[in-house]
Amino acid sequence: MTYELYYWSGIQGRGEFVRLALEDAGADYVDVAALPTGDEKLMTFIERGDLVRPPFAPPFLREGDLVIAQTAAILMYLGNRLGQSSQEETERLWVHQIQLTIADVVGEAHDAHHPIGAHLYYEDQKAESLRRAMDFCRHRIPKYLGWFERILSRNPQGDAYLVGANATYADLSLFQLVEGLLYAFPKATQRALVKAPGVAALHERIAARRRIREYIESGRRTPFNEQGIFRHYAELDS
Amino acid sequence: MTYELYYWSGIQGRGEFVRLALEDAGADYVDVAALPTGDEKLMTFIERGDLVRPPFAPPFLREGDLVIAQTAAILMYLGNRLGQSSQEETERLWVHQIQLTIADVVGEAHDAHHPIGAHLYYEDQKAESLRRAMDFCRHRIPKYLGWFERILSRNPQGDAYLVGANATYADLSLFQLVEGLLYAFPKATQRALVKAPGVAALHERIAARRRIREYIESGRRTPFNEQGIFRHYAELDS
Repeated sequence: MTYELYYWSGIQGRGEFVRLALEDAGADYVDVAALPTGDEKLMTFIERGDLVRPPFAPPFLREGDLVIAQTAAILMYLGNRLGQSSQEETERLWVHQIQLTIADVVGEAHDAHHPIGAHLYYEDQKAESLRRAMDFCRHRIPKYLGWFERILSRNPQGDAYLVGANATYADLSLFQLVEGLLYAFPKATQRALVKAPGVAALHERIAARRRIREYIESGRRTPFNEQGIFRHYAELDS
Repeated sequence: MTYELYYWSGIQGRGEFVRLALEDAGADYVDVAALPTGDEKLMTFIERGDLVRPPFAPPFLREGDLVIAQTAAILMYLGNRLGQSSQEETERLWVHQIQLTIADVVGEAHDAHHPIGAHLYYEDQKAESLRRAMDFCRHRIPKYLGWFERILSRNPQGDAYLVGANATYADLSLFQLVEGLLYAFPKATQRALVKAPGVAALHERIAARRRIREYIESGRRTPFNEQGIFRHYAELDS
Protein backbone atom coordinates (compact mmCIF):
# COMPACT_ATOMS: atom_id res chain seq x y z
CA MET A 1 0.00 0.00 0.00
CA THR A 2 1.29 3.47 -0.90
CA TYR A 3 1.54 5.91 1.99
CA GLU A 4 0.43 9.51 1.52
CA LEU A 5 2.15 12.13 3.63
CA TYR A 6 0.19 15.36 4.06
CA TYR A 7 2.04 18.46 5.17
CA TRP A 8 2.38 22.10 4.20
CA SER A 9 4.52 22.86 1.19
CA GLY A 10 7.53 25.16 1.38
CA ILE A 11 8.80 24.16 4.82
CA GLN A 12 10.38 21.12 6.41
CA GLY A 13 8.50 21.51 9.67
CA ARG A 14 7.23 18.48 11.53
CA GLY A 15 6.52 16.71 8.26
CA GLU A 16 10.25 16.29 7.67
CA PHE A 17 10.58 13.89 10.60
CA VAL A 18 8.10 11.57 8.87
CA ARG A 19 9.67 12.15 5.46
CA LEU A 20 13.09 11.06 6.72
CA ALA A 21 11.64 7.82 8.07
CA LEU A 22 9.93 7.08 4.75
CA GLU A 23 13.03 8.00 2.77
CA ASP A 24 15.43 5.98 4.90
CA ALA A 25 13.21 2.93 4.54
CA GLY A 26 12.85 3.39 0.80
CA ALA A 27 9.09 3.31 1.33
CA ASP A 28 6.61 3.86 -1.46
CA TYR A 29 4.94 7.18 -0.63
CA VAL A 30 3.33 10.22 -2.14
CA ASP A 31 4.60 13.48 -0.73
CA VAL A 32 1.44 15.56 -1.08
CA ALA A 33 3.37 18.78 -0.33
CA ALA A 34 5.37 18.22 -3.53
CA LEU A 35 2.25 18.16 -5.71
CA PRO A 36 1.29 21.41 -7.48
CA THR A 37 -1.91 21.71 -5.43
CA GLY A 38 -0.63 20.04 -2.29
CA ASP A 39 -1.78 22.64 0.21
CA GLU A 40 -5.22 22.69 -1.34
CA LYS A 41 -5.46 18.91 -1.17
CA LEU A 42 -4.42 19.04 2.46
CA MET A 43 -7.04 21.65 3.34
CA THR A 44 -9.78 19.83 1.44
CA PHE A 45 -8.94 16.60 3.18
CA ILE A 46 -8.68 17.94 6.72
CA GLU A 47 -12.03 19.71 6.38
CA ARG A 48 -13.91 16.63 5.27
CA GLY A 49 -16.96 16.10 7.43
CA ASP A 50 -16.85 12.32 7.13
CA LEU A 51 -13.47 11.77 8.81
CA VAL A 52 -14.04 9.68 11.92
CA ARG A 53 -10.51 10.46 13.09
CA PRO A 54 -9.93 14.04 11.97
CA PRO A 55 -6.35 15.30 12.39
CA PHE A 56 -5.98 18.34 14.63
CA ALA A 57 -3.14 19.56 12.41
CA PRO A 58 -0.67 18.29 9.80
CA PRO A 59 1.42 16.27 9.38
CA PHE A 60 -0.82 13.30 8.87
CA LEU A 61 -0.36 10.03 7.08
CA ARG A 62 -2.91 8.17 5.00
CA GLU A 63 -2.76 4.51 4.23
CA GLY A 64 -6.00 3.57 2.55
CA ASP A 65 -8.77 4.39 5.03
CA LEU A 66 -6.36 4.87 7.89
CA VAL A 67 -5.50 8.45 8.86
CA ILE A 68 -2.90 9.13 11.56
CA ALA A 69 -1.77 12.52 12.83
CA GLN A 70 0.75 13.63 15.47
CA THR A 71 4.34 13.14 14.31
CA ALA A 72 5.32 10.78 17.13
CA ALA A 73 2.23 8.61 16.58
CA ILE A 74 2.90 8.43 12.84
CA LEU A 75 6.49 7.42 13.47
CA MET A 76 5.49 4.77 15.97
CA TYR A 77 3.09 3.30 13.43
CA LEU A 78 5.59 3.43 10.57
CA GLY A 79 8.46 2.28 12.76
CA ASN A 80 6.74 -1.03 13.39
CA ARG A 81 6.15 -1.54 9.68
CA LEU A 82 9.39 -0.18 8.24
CA GLY A 83 11.73 -1.92 10.66
CA GLN A 84 12.71 1.31 12.37
CA SER A 85 11.78 0.32 15.88
CA SER A 86 12.28 -2.64 18.17
CA GLN A 87 10.50 -5.99 18.23
CA GLU A 88 10.22 -5.87 21.99
CA GLU A 89 7.36 -3.97 23.58
CA THR A 90 9.14 -2.06 26.34
CA GLU A 91 12.02 -1.22 24.00
CA ARG A 92 9.49 0.11 21.48
CA LEU A 93 8.11 2.25 24.24
CA TRP A 94 11.61 3.52 25.01
CA VAL A 95 12.11 4.52 21.37
CA HIS A 96 8.78 6.31 21.54
CA GLN A 97 9.65 7.99 24.83
CA ILE A 98 12.80 9.41 23.25
CA GLN A 99 10.73 10.58 20.28
CA LEU A 100 8.30 12.39 22.59
CA THR A 101 11.23 14.19 24.16
CA ILE A 102 12.50 15.18 20.71
CA ALA A 103 8.99 16.52 20.05
CA ASP A 104 9.30 18.63 23.21
CA VAL A 105 12.54 20.19 21.96
CA VAL A 106 10.97 20.86 18.57
CA GLY A 107 8.09 22.66 20.27
CA GLU A 108 10.54 24.76 22.26
CA ALA A 109 12.60 25.54 19.15
CA HIS A 110 9.43 26.87 17.54
CA ASP A 111 8.46 28.90 20.58
CA ALA A 112 11.91 30.50 20.67
CA HIS A 113 10.78 32.68 17.75
CA HIS A 114 7.07 32.55 18.57
CA PRO A 115 6.81 32.81 22.35
CA ILE A 116 3.56 34.77 22.28
CA GLY A 117 1.45 33.19 19.56
CA ALA A 118 1.82 31.11 16.41
CA HIS A 119 -0.52 33.31 14.40
CA LEU A 120 1.51 36.50 15.02
CA TYR A 121 4.53 37.53 13.00
CA TYR A 122 8.00 37.15 14.49
CA GLU A 123 8.44 40.90 14.15
CA ASP A 124 5.48 41.39 16.48
CA GLN A 125 7.05 39.31 19.24
CA LYS A 126 10.71 40.00 18.70
CA ALA A 127 11.42 41.45 22.14
CA GLU A 128 9.86 38.41 23.78
CA SER A 129 11.74 36.09 21.40
CA LEU A 130 15.06 37.59 22.44
CA ARG A 131 14.39 36.63 26.04
CA ARG A 132 12.96 33.22 25.30
CA ALA A 133 15.66 32.26 22.82
CA MET A 134 18.37 33.21 25.29
CA ASP A 135 16.88 30.76 27.76
CA PHE A 136 16.56 28.13 25.06
CA CYS A 137 20.18 28.55 23.89
CA ARG A 138 21.79 28.74 27.31
CA HIS A 139 19.75 26.21 29.26
CA ARG A 140 17.48 24.05 27.16
CA ILE A 141 19.68 23.04 24.22
CA PRO A 142 22.54 21.90 26.49
CA LYS A 143 20.13 20.10 28.82
CA TYR A 144 18.40 18.19 26.04
CA LEU A 145 21.58 17.33 24.13
CA GLY A 146 23.11 16.22 27.41
CA TRP A 147 20.25 13.81 27.92
CA PHE A 148 20.64 12.31 24.45
CA GLU A 149 24.37 11.98 25.10
CA ARG A 150 23.64 10.14 28.35
CA ILE A 151 21.29 7.73 26.58
CA LEU A 152 23.87 6.97 23.90
CA SER A 153 26.59 6.37 26.46
CA ARG A 154 24.35 4.02 28.43
CA ASN A 155 23.03 1.98 25.52
CA PRO A 156 24.04 -1.59 26.40
CA GLN A 157 24.52 -2.30 22.69
CA GLY A 158 26.95 0.55 22.13
CA ASP A 159 26.82 4.26 21.52
CA ALA A 160 26.26 4.15 17.77
CA TYR A 161 22.49 4.47 18.13
CA LEU A 162 20.03 5.57 20.79
CA VAL A 163 18.36 2.18 21.21
CA GLY A 164 19.76 -1.20 20.34
CA ALA A 165 22.32 -1.86 17.62
CA ASN A 166 20.48 -0.33 14.67
CA ALA A 167 18.99 3.01 13.69
CA THR A 168 15.40 3.58 14.79
CA TYR A 169 13.11 6.43 13.84
CA ALA A 170 14.32 8.20 16.98
CA ASP A 171 17.87 8.32 15.56
CA LEU A 172 16.55 9.76 12.28
CA SER A 173 14.61 12.35 14.25
CA LEU A 174 17.59 13.23 16.42
CA PHE A 175 19.57 13.79 13.21
CA GLN A 176 16.85 16.16 12.00
CA LEU A 177 16.69 17.92 15.35
CA VAL A 178 20.44 18.55 15.29
CA GLU A 179 20.19 19.70 11.65
CA GLY A 180 17.48 22.16 12.60
CA LEU A 181 19.25 23.44 15.70
CA LEU A 182 22.49 23.90 13.75
CA TYR A 183 20.61 25.93 11.17
CA ALA A 184 18.66 28.06 13.63
CA PHE A 185 21.12 28.45 16.50
CA PRO A 186 24.55 27.54 15.10
CA LYS A 187 26.61 29.13 17.87
CA ALA A 188 24.61 27.72 20.75
CA THR A 189 24.30 24.30 19.15
CA GLN A 190 27.97 23.94 18.24
CA ARG A 191 28.82 24.87 21.81
CA ALA A 192 26.45 22.23 23.16
CA LEU A 193 27.63 19.57 20.71
CA VAL A 194 31.20 19.91 21.97
CA LYS A 195 29.89 18.50 25.23
CA ALA A 196 27.80 15.89 23.43
CA PRO A 197 30.28 14.22 21.05
CA GLY A 198 28.17 11.08 20.78
CA VAL A 199 25.23 13.12 19.51
CA ALA A 200 27.48 14.91 17.03
CA ALA A 201 28.79 11.54 15.80
CA LEU A 202 25.27 10.16 15.50
CA HIS A 203 24.31 13.18 13.43
CA GLU A 204 27.18 12.41 11.03
CA ARG A 205 26.37 8.70 11.01
CA ILE A 206 22.78 9.28 9.95
CA ALA A 207 23.79 11.89 7.35
CA ALA A 208 26.03 9.25 5.76
CA ARG A 209 23.30 6.64 5.35
CA ARG A 210 22.85 5.88 1.68
CA ARG A 211 19.18 6.78 1.31
CA ILE A 212 19.41 9.83 3.55
CA ARG A 213 22.36 11.10 1.53
CA GLU A 214 20.52 10.39 -1.73
CA TYR A 215 17.46 12.20 -0.45
CA ILE A 216 19.43 15.25 0.65
CA GLU A 217 21.32 15.33 -2.67
CA SER A 218 18.15 14.81 -4.70
CA GLY A 219 17.02 18.40 -4.36
CA ARG A 220 13.69 17.15 -3.03
CA ARG A 221 14.48 18.24 0.51
CA THR A 222 13.10 21.73 1.11
CA PRO A 223 15.87 23.96 2.49
CA PHE A 224 15.43 25.36 5.99
CA ASN A 225 13.91 28.82 5.86
CA GLU A 226 12.27 31.47 8.02
CA GLN A 227 8.76 30.09 7.59
CA GLY A 228 9.38 26.79 9.32
CA ILE A 229 10.03 25.60 12.84
CA PHE A 230 13.79 26.04 12.79
CA ARG A 231 14.43 29.66 11.80
CA HIS A 232 17.72 31.43 11.74
CA TYR A 233 17.52 34.91 13.19
CA ALA A 234 21.10 35.77 14.12
CA GLU A 235 19.96 37.91 17.04
CA LEU A 236 18.36 34.88 18.73
CA ASP A 237 21.49 32.72 18.67
CA SER A 238 23.35 33.43 21.87
CA MET B 1 3.32 -5.98 40.63
CA THR B 2 2.94 -2.65 42.43
CA TYR B 3 3.45 0.44 40.31
CA GLU B 4 5.44 3.36 41.65
CA LEU B 5 4.56 6.80 40.35
CA TYR B 6 7.30 9.41 40.73
CA TYR B 7 6.38 13.04 40.54
CA TRP B 8 6.98 16.27 42.44
CA SER B 9 5.00 16.75 45.63
CA GLY B 10 2.72 19.73 46.14
CA ILE B 11 1.35 20.04 42.62
CA GLN B 12 -0.92 18.05 40.34
CA GLY B 13 1.11 18.77 37.23
CA ARG B 14 1.59 16.12 34.59
CA GLY B 15 1.70 13.43 37.25
CA GLU B 16 -2.02 13.85 37.85
CA PHE B 17 -2.86 12.46 34.41
CA VAL B 18 -1.15 9.21 35.39
CA ARG B 19 -2.63 9.28 38.88
CA LEU B 20 -6.17 9.50 37.50
CA ALA B 21 -5.56 6.45 35.29
CA LEU B 22 -4.23 4.45 38.23
CA GLU B 23 -7.05 5.60 40.50
CA ASP B 24 -9.82 4.92 38.00
CA ALA B 25 -8.50 1.39 37.45
CA GLY B 26 -8.16 0.74 41.17
CA ALA B 27 -4.55 -0.17 40.50
CA ASP B 28 -2.12 -1.04 43.27
CA TYR B 29 0.39 1.81 43.28
CA VAL B 30 2.70 3.83 45.48
CA ASP B 31 2.39 7.57 45.01
CA VAL B 32 5.97 8.58 45.79
CA ALA B 33 4.97 12.27 45.99
CA ALA B 34 2.78 11.43 48.98
CA LEU B 35 5.70 9.99 50.97
CA PRO B 36 7.41 12.30 53.48
CA THR B 37 10.65 12.25 51.49
CA GLY B 38 9.09 11.87 48.06
CA ASP B 39 10.98 14.65 46.29
CA GLU B 40 14.26 13.37 47.68
CA LYS B 41 13.49 9.83 46.53
CA LEU B 42 12.66 11.20 43.09
CA MET B 43 15.90 13.17 42.83
CA THR B 44 17.99 10.27 44.08
CA PHE B 45 16.39 7.94 41.59
CA ILE B 46 16.63 10.17 38.54
CA GLU B 47 20.31 10.86 39.21
CA ARG B 48 21.27 7.21 39.40
CA GLY B 49 24.16 6.51 37.07
CA ASP B 50 23.05 2.94 36.38
CA LEU B 51 19.71 3.74 34.72
CA VAL B 52 19.81 2.47 31.16
CA ARG B 53 16.68 4.42 30.36
CA PRO B 54 17.00 7.60 32.41
CA PRO B 55 13.90 9.82 32.45
CA PHE B 56 14.42 13.33 31.11
CA ALA B 57 11.93 14.60 33.67
CA PRO B 58 9.12 13.41 35.93
CA PRO B 59 6.55 11.96 35.88
CA PHE B 60 7.91 8.48 35.52
CA LEU B 61 6.55 5.10 36.39
CA ARG B 62 8.44 2.16 37.83
CA GLU B 63 7.31 -1.41 37.63
CA GLY B 64 10.13 -3.58 38.87
CA ASP B 65 13.09 -2.88 36.61
CA LEU B 66 11.00 -1.06 34.05
CA VAL B 67 11.15 2.75 34.08
CA ILE B 68 8.92 4.78 31.76
CA ALA B 69 8.77 8.57 31.46
CA GLN B 70 6.73 10.94 29.29
CA THR B 71 3.10 11.12 30.42
CA ALA B 72 1.64 9.92 27.12
CA ALA B 73 4.01 6.95 26.96
CA ILE B 74 3.19 5.98 30.55
CA LEU B 75 -0.52 6.16 29.81
CA MET B 76 -0.16 4.07 26.67
CA TYR B 77 1.68 1.43 28.65
CA LEU B 78 -0.79 1.45 31.52
CA GLY B 79 -3.79 1.70 29.21
CA ASN B 80 -2.98 -1.66 27.68
CA ARG B 81 -2.67 -3.24 31.08
CA LEU B 82 -5.49 -1.52 32.96
CA GLY B 83 -8.13 -1.89 30.25
CA GLN B 84 -8.16 1.83 29.48
CA SER B 85 -7.40 1.58 25.80
CA SER B 86 -8.58 -0.44 22.83
CA GLN B 87 -7.75 -4.00 21.84
CA GLU B 88 -7.31 -2.97 18.24
CA GLU B 89 -3.98 -1.54 17.09
CA THR B 90 -5.11 1.42 14.99
CA GLU B 91 -7.74 2.33 17.57
CA ARG B 92 -5.04 2.24 20.25
CA LEU B 93 -3.05 4.60 18.11
CA TRP B 94 -6.07 6.89 17.83
CA VAL B 95 -6.42 7.00 21.63
CA HIS B 96 -2.73 7.83 21.81
CA GLN B 97 -3.00 10.48 19.10
CA ILE B 98 -5.72 12.21 21.12
CA GLN B 99 -3.52 11.97 24.21
CA LEU B 100 -0.63 13.62 22.37
CA THR B 101 -2.92 16.49 21.42
CA ILE B 102 -4.00 16.82 25.06
CA ALA B 103 -0.29 16.99 25.92
CA ASP B 104 0.07 19.85 23.44
CA VAL B 105 -2.68 21.82 25.18
CA VAL B 106 -1.11 21.13 28.56
CA GLY B 107 2.20 22.51 27.30
CA GLU B 108 0.47 25.63 26.01
CA ALA B 109 -1.43 26.07 29.28
CA HIS B 110 1.92 26.04 31.07
CA ASP B 111 3.50 28.48 28.65
CA ALA B 112 0.58 30.89 29.10
CA HIS B 113 2.15 31.83 32.44
CA HIS B 114 5.73 30.95 31.49
CA PRO B 115 6.19 32.12 27.90
CA ILE B 116 9.84 33.07 28.37
CA GLY B 117 11.32 30.33 30.50
CA ALA B 118 10.32 27.67 32.99
CA HIS B 119 13.08 28.57 35.43
CA LEU B 120 12.00 32.23 35.74
CA TYR B 121 9.28 33.48 38.06
CA TYR B 122 5.90 34.40 36.66
CA GLU B 123 6.45 37.91 37.97
CA ASP B 124 9.52 38.20 35.75
CA GLN B 125 7.54 37.41 32.60
CA LYS B 126 4.17 38.86 33.44
CA ALA B 127 4.00 41.29 30.53
CA GLU B 128 4.76 38.49 28.09
CA SER B 129 2.26 36.22 29.85
CA LEU B 130 -0.51 38.75 29.36
CA ARG B 131 0.00 38.64 25.61
CA ARG B 132 0.47 34.89 25.36
CA ALA B 133 -2.49 34.07 27.61
CA MET B 134 -4.76 36.31 25.57
CA ASP B 135 -3.86 34.30 22.51
CA PHE B 136 -4.36 31.05 24.41
CA CYS B 137 -7.76 32.09 25.78
CA ARG B 138 -9.16 33.57 22.59
CA HIS B 139 -7.79 31.21 19.96
CA ARG B 140 -6.26 28.06 21.33
CA ILE B 141 -8.74 26.93 24.00
CA PRO B 142 -11.72 27.22 21.60
CA LYS B 143 -9.78 25.51 18.80
CA TYR B 144 -8.72 22.56 20.92
CA LEU B 145 -12.08 22.10 22.65
CA GLY B 146 -13.75 22.34 19.25
CA TRP B 147 -11.59 19.47 18.03
CA PHE B 148 -12.47 17.28 21.01
CA GLU B 149 -16.14 18.10 20.42
CA ARG B 150 -15.81 17.06 16.78
CA ILE B 151 -14.24 13.76 17.76
CA LEU B 152 -17.01 13.03 20.24
CA SER B 153 -19.71 13.84 17.72
CA ARG B 154 -18.09 11.60 15.12
CA ASN B 155 -17.47 8.59 17.35
CA PRO B 156 -19.36 5.78 15.60
CA GLN B 157 -20.13 4.27 19.00
CA GLY B 158 -21.76 7.39 20.37
CA ASP B 159 -20.67 10.65 21.94
CA ALA B 160 -20.30 9.42 25.51
CA TYR B 161 -16.56 8.82 25.10
CA LEU B 162 -13.80 9.90 22.72
CA VAL B 163 -13.07 6.43 21.38
CA GLY B 164 -15.35 3.41 21.38
CA ALA B 165 -18.09 2.77 23.94
CA ASN B 166 -16.01 2.95 27.11
CA ALA B 167 -13.73 5.39 28.87
CA THR B 168 -10.07 5.27 27.83
CA TYR B 169 -7.14 7.06 29.41
CA ALA B 170 -7.73 9.85 26.89
CA ASP B 171 -11.17 10.51 28.43
CA LEU B 172 -9.64 10.64 31.90
CA SER B 173 -7.01 13.07 30.63
CA LEU B 174 -9.57 15.23 28.87
CA PHE B 175 -11.45 15.42 32.19
CA GLN B 176 -8.26 16.59 33.87
CA LEU B 177 -7.51 19.07 31.09
CA VAL B 178 -10.97 20.62 31.45
CA GLU B 179 -10.55 20.68 35.25
CA GLY B 180 -7.26 22.50 34.87
CA LEU B 181 -8.52 24.96 32.30
CA LEU B 182 -11.60 25.73 34.41
CA TYR B 183 -9.33 26.44 37.35
CA ALA B 184 -6.81 28.55 35.48
CA PHE B 185 -8.97 30.31 32.90
CA PRO B 186 -12.58 30.01 34.14
CA LYS B 187 -14.04 32.73 31.95
CA ALA B 188 -12.38 31.66 28.73
CA THR B 189 -13.04 27.98 29.37
CA GLN B 190 -16.71 28.38 30.30
CA ARG B 191 -17.16 30.40 27.13
CA ALA B 192 -15.51 27.68 25.03
CA LEU B 193 -17.44 24.87 26.75
CA VAL B 194 -20.75 26.46 25.75
CA LYS B 195 -19.75 25.66 22.19
CA ALA B 196 -18.47 22.21 23.16
CA PRO B 197 -21.40 20.70 25.11
CA GLY B 198 -20.20 17.17 24.47
CA VAL B 199 -16.87 17.94 26.13
CA ALA B 200 -18.68 19.54 29.07
CA ALA B 201 -20.86 16.44 29.42
CA LEU B 202 -17.83 14.13 29.23
CA HIS B 203 -16.19 16.16 31.99
CA GLU B 204 -19.25 15.58 34.20
CA ARG B 205 -19.44 11.92 33.22
CA ILE B 206 -15.86 11.23 34.27
CA ALA B 207 -16.24 13.24 37.48
CA ALA B 208 -19.17 10.97 38.40
CA ARG B 209 -17.23 7.71 38.02
CA ARG B 210 -17.13 5.93 41.35
CA ARG B 211 -13.36 5.70 41.80
CA ILE B 212 -12.71 9.18 40.46
CA ARG B 213 -15.30 10.60 42.84
CA GLU B 214 -13.84 8.62 45.73
CA TYR B 215 -10.36 9.83 44.86
CA ILE B 216 -11.43 13.46 44.69
CA GLU B 217 -13.35 13.17 47.96
CA SER B 218 -10.49 11.32 49.67
CA GLY B 219 -8.46 14.46 50.24
CA ARG B 220 -5.52 12.76 48.52
CA ARG B 221 -5.87 14.90 45.42
CA THR B 222 -3.58 17.94 45.71
CA PRO B 223 -5.62 21.10 45.06
CA PHE B 224 -4.71 23.20 42.04
CA ASN B 225 -2.32 25.98 43.01
CA GLU B 226 0.03 28.56 41.55
CA GLN B 227 3.05 26.25 41.49
CA GLY B 228 1.65 23.80 38.98
CA ILE B 229 0.83 23.79 35.29
CA PHE B 230 -2.69 25.17 35.60
CA ARG B 231 -2.38 28.44 37.52
CA HIS B 232 -5.09 30.94 38.16
CA TYR B 233 -3.92 34.50 37.66
CA ALA B 234 -7.11 36.48 37.11
CA GLU B 235 -5.34 38.93 34.82
CA LEU B 236 -4.53 36.14 32.35
CA ASP B 237 -8.13 34.93 31.95
CA SER B 238 -9.63 36.91 29.11
